[in-house]
Amino acid sequence: MSAQEHGYHMNAEEFRHWGRAAIEWIADYMEGIESYPVLSRVKPGEIRAMLPESPPANGETFEQIFADLDRVIMPGITHWQSPNFYAFFPANTSGPSILGDLISSGLGVQGMLWATSPACTELETHVLDWVADMLALPSKFHSSGPGGGVIQDSASSASLSALLAARERALTYQGIESGLDGKLVAYTSSQAHSSIEKACMIAGIGRQNLRSIPVDGNFAMRVDDLQNQIEHDRSAGLKPFFVVATVGTTSSNGLDPLPEIGALCQQEGLWLHVDAAMAGTAAICPEYRYIQAGVKLADSYCFNPHKWMFTNFDCDCFFVDDRAALIRTLSILPEYLRNQATESGAVIDYRDWQVPLGRRFRALKLWFVIRAYGVEGLQFHIRRHIAQAQEFANWVREAQEFEVAAPVPLNLICFRHIAGDEFNRTLLKKLNDSGKLYLTHTVLDGQYTLRLCVGQTNTEARHVAKAWQLIQDTAAQLNA
Amino acid sequence: MSAQEHGYHMNAEEFRHWGRAAIEWIADYMEGIESYPVLSRVKPGEIRAMLPESPPANGETFEQIFADLDRVIMPGITHWQSPNFYAFFPANTSGPSILGDLISSGLGVQGMLWATSPACTELETHVLDWVADMLALPSKFHSSGPGGGVIQDSASSASLSALLAARERALTYQGIESGLDGKLVAYTSSQAHSSIEKACMIAGIGRQNLRSIPVDGNFAMRVDDLQNQIEHDRSAGLKPFFVVATVGTTSSNGLDPLPEIGALCQQEGLWLHVDAAMAGTAAICPEYRYIQAGVKLADSYCFNPHKWMFTNFDCDCFFVDDRAALIRTLSILPEYLRNQATESGAVIDYRDWQVPLGRRFRALKLWFVIRAYGVEGLQFHIRRHIAQAQEFANWVREAQEFEVAAPVPLNLICFRHIAGDEFNRTLLKKLNDSGKLYLTHTVLDGQYTLRLCVGQTNTEARHVAKAWQLIQDTAAQLNA
Repeated sequence: MSAQEHGYHMNAEEFRHWGRAAIEWIADYMEGIESYPVLSRVKPGEIRAMLPESPPANGETFEQIFADLDRVIMPGITHWQSPNFYAFFPANTSGPSILGDLISSGLGVQGMLWATSPACTELETHVLDWVADMLALPSKFHSSGPGGGVIQDSASSASLSALLAARERALTYQGIESGLDGKLVAYTSSQAHSSIEKACMIAGIGRQNLRSIPVDGNFAMRVDDLQNQIEHDRSAGLKPFFVVATVGTTSSNGLDPLPEIGALCQQEGLWLHVDAAMAGTAAICPEYRYIQAGVKLADSYCFNPHKWMFTNFDCDCFFVDDRAALIRTLSILPEYLRNQATESGAVIDYRDWQVPLGRRFRALKLWFVIRAYGVEGLQFHIRRHIAQAQEFANWVREAQEFEVAAPVPLNLICFRHIAGDEFNRTLLKKLNDSGKLYLTHTVLDGQYTLRLCVGQTNTEARHVAKAWQLIQDTAAQLNA
Repeated sequence: MSAQEHGYHMNAEEFRHWGRAAIEWIADYMEGIESYPVLSRVKPGEIRAMLPESPPANGETFEQIFADLDRVIMPGITHWQSPNFYAFFPANTSGPSILGDLISSGLGVQGMLWATSPACTELETHVLDWVADMLALPSKFHSSGPGGGVIQDSASSASLSALLAARERALTYQGIESGLDGKLVAYTSSQAHSSIEKACMIAGIGRQNLRSIPVDGNFAMRVDDLQNQIEHDRSAGLKPFFVVATVGTTSSNGLDPLPEIGALCQQEGLWLHVDAAMAGTAAICPEYRYIQAGVKLADSYCFNPHKWMFTNFDCDCFFVDDRAALIRTLSILPEYLRNQATESGAVIDYRDWQVPLGRRFRALKLWFVIRAYGVEGLQFHIRRHIAQAQEFANWVREAQEFEVAAPVPLNLICFRHIAGDEFNRTLLKKLNDSGKLYLTHTVLDGQYTLRLCVGQTNTEARHVAKAWQLIQDTAAQLNA
């Protein structure tokens, strides 16, 4: 390129230089991550106050940009990759994932159509078949039959896509044509993720038409209540169409009874979607596959490698047993996207499997992760996390002043001090303010409850032991 | 970490090594990109056939993984970053963007709430204010007032979000509660992007309730027809609520008359969304801001830095003048997401501005791009691309056997050989089969038309000249 036209672009040599610097920066961050307070301590507006009012008229150097990364950005980071991060759910990542994502950025392809980069589509289809095998999902979710898998940005989007396909199947595809009639009713448990309610709002079902089914003492959906509600709605002239069951609720890792829910859905002709956002990964280990018993009765299923499978956001794996229902719901083919491969019917165009048109080459990072770890490597770390969580649960059970508040099937412990809500609220704040760990809370059976979720890439037994020590010590100080 | 627990993870030293290798791989790709055929030549199934049936039980080395990147993936890549890519729209990227995205992967934070990484939210709010200034968008889209900007994955999602907020405002927020009544009607031109139709399907409006308004000879929406259609629908008892105007249609870069459409929307009380997906970037240059005259009458606006602003996918900038309408439509607050900062009302939680809950730190790459180029650097390249496109258009106009099929306000030329549809179809196929460039087509006024869009990061005058030579030579061969 002529100097004139090159103008302001970073050339390949500069990219080599600053690329190495970025890699070193990340490696240093990985090595030093425990030196940061886990939860950012800035106040609202503090980060913005360090940024100039206006964008620069002239380009700045990467020395300046990297310096501002440390000066401006880092104080405002909550360190999700810290081994002392136990909040919400993990968003664990790994070297192989970061590098796969980097190659994806470098290739810069758009995977909206098969033709716009066949490898982007075919690797995705293939790796999602691998994932279905790794989790021992039913063969109907394989691309070799009428179903198949696709990467969505999040479980929210997967659940929305499932709901849309279910909505249209129930309306014999008239909803996409002339709109809705306000009679469709969806069902999920009171412990389901908020994204189900949001999907009902987005899709025009309305949140009052999402029934919140009560749970039993293990925070699992009560199937008798589900059945009664469906009957009640049918007799009121409404149209039940969609059930979301959860494998590992966000609040407490509750496990809905899929075999019974699935049987009911089949009998009633309802679409069953299974949301296994975090917990699904555990099924890589045969001994934990019981959590998804009955999944063969589901119409769709999703889980997030970007939570607990060392793959950075965004990467949700979404499987359907009838891809035609999804495609018929979401397909649009304007003239400017027509092409020979699409018209031949021999290829998948993933733009018809999702809300947005554009898509990034996300299968690369998942492929890198699965290949770099191997199935055994992934099993090793899942087992390690679960063992650490189980040990923590045992410590809580043995402690006189603490109690476990829900079953602990996997890697999430819900627990509380016996001194009541106010005490636990103060305890949580004091713990998080220490900067030494980050926990979040929920409310179970009306009681304020702490959640500790083990799943960060580099969390090891000593971190969990230290967390428990800190929790005990802090509670003792509060009691004193 | 103990060796036992470290297990299969890539450590920081290994990350440094393979990170450097990945950077070198990308730099080599940048330097050698013109050696690849632009459009991938593989047949359906060829890539999958090179992949093993099952995932590896044991981890593989990065030597193996990188070797397969070259062996398996590269033949299936359509090279969007090639300077000879003129298809669809650009998806241009740059070194600064790739590095910003890399740092985002390394930090691995979830920006769903302000509290989950304040810098992720505050940098986004701040940089979107910068972008509004850079494009001279009205101050009502600034975060300092009741409006503000947010990064969405794509213009599809931005348009859907706008439609949802408009839907709810029109229904006084009853749609999110009890569902829809089938009476809402939306409007856009016959040349609008397919995502508008898809949004109407997703949101339960129904595609028959999206009116396709005819265009004039310049492929711009006819405001008289829009007005007549609104009146017709009102008198039929329907509820007009939403208009999408396009600045730079995908098919031909048509420019809808925003001042007239905006005035009509104000008079009728309709939400006006402006989709400037690719063309919006041109407004960085004062001399092209006429394309968005009237945008001050819009309720929302979006454009994609991931198309023509050197920022890799995904990065759509979406602005609203009333963020409360958006938040009220999309907000959900389950117990496990409650936190002090949110309850104080002093912060933005971007999860309420989008469909998914989770979100990546995408503002970093946009910040890197704007700082590394500076506003003048971006202007320089936009002007360069437009000048190259205008020169190409002039060559077509001067050629006896070719004609320009639509106005060329910016960087997209719609043109055809005078020998008719079949000839142009064959010409396109022959050109793309050559591997020397990649063009796509559209249909304008019923005629098959070639599209050449200039916007790749490294496209320079000599590439465009070569493309024109190849087009002429190939047409001559077909004629012979």
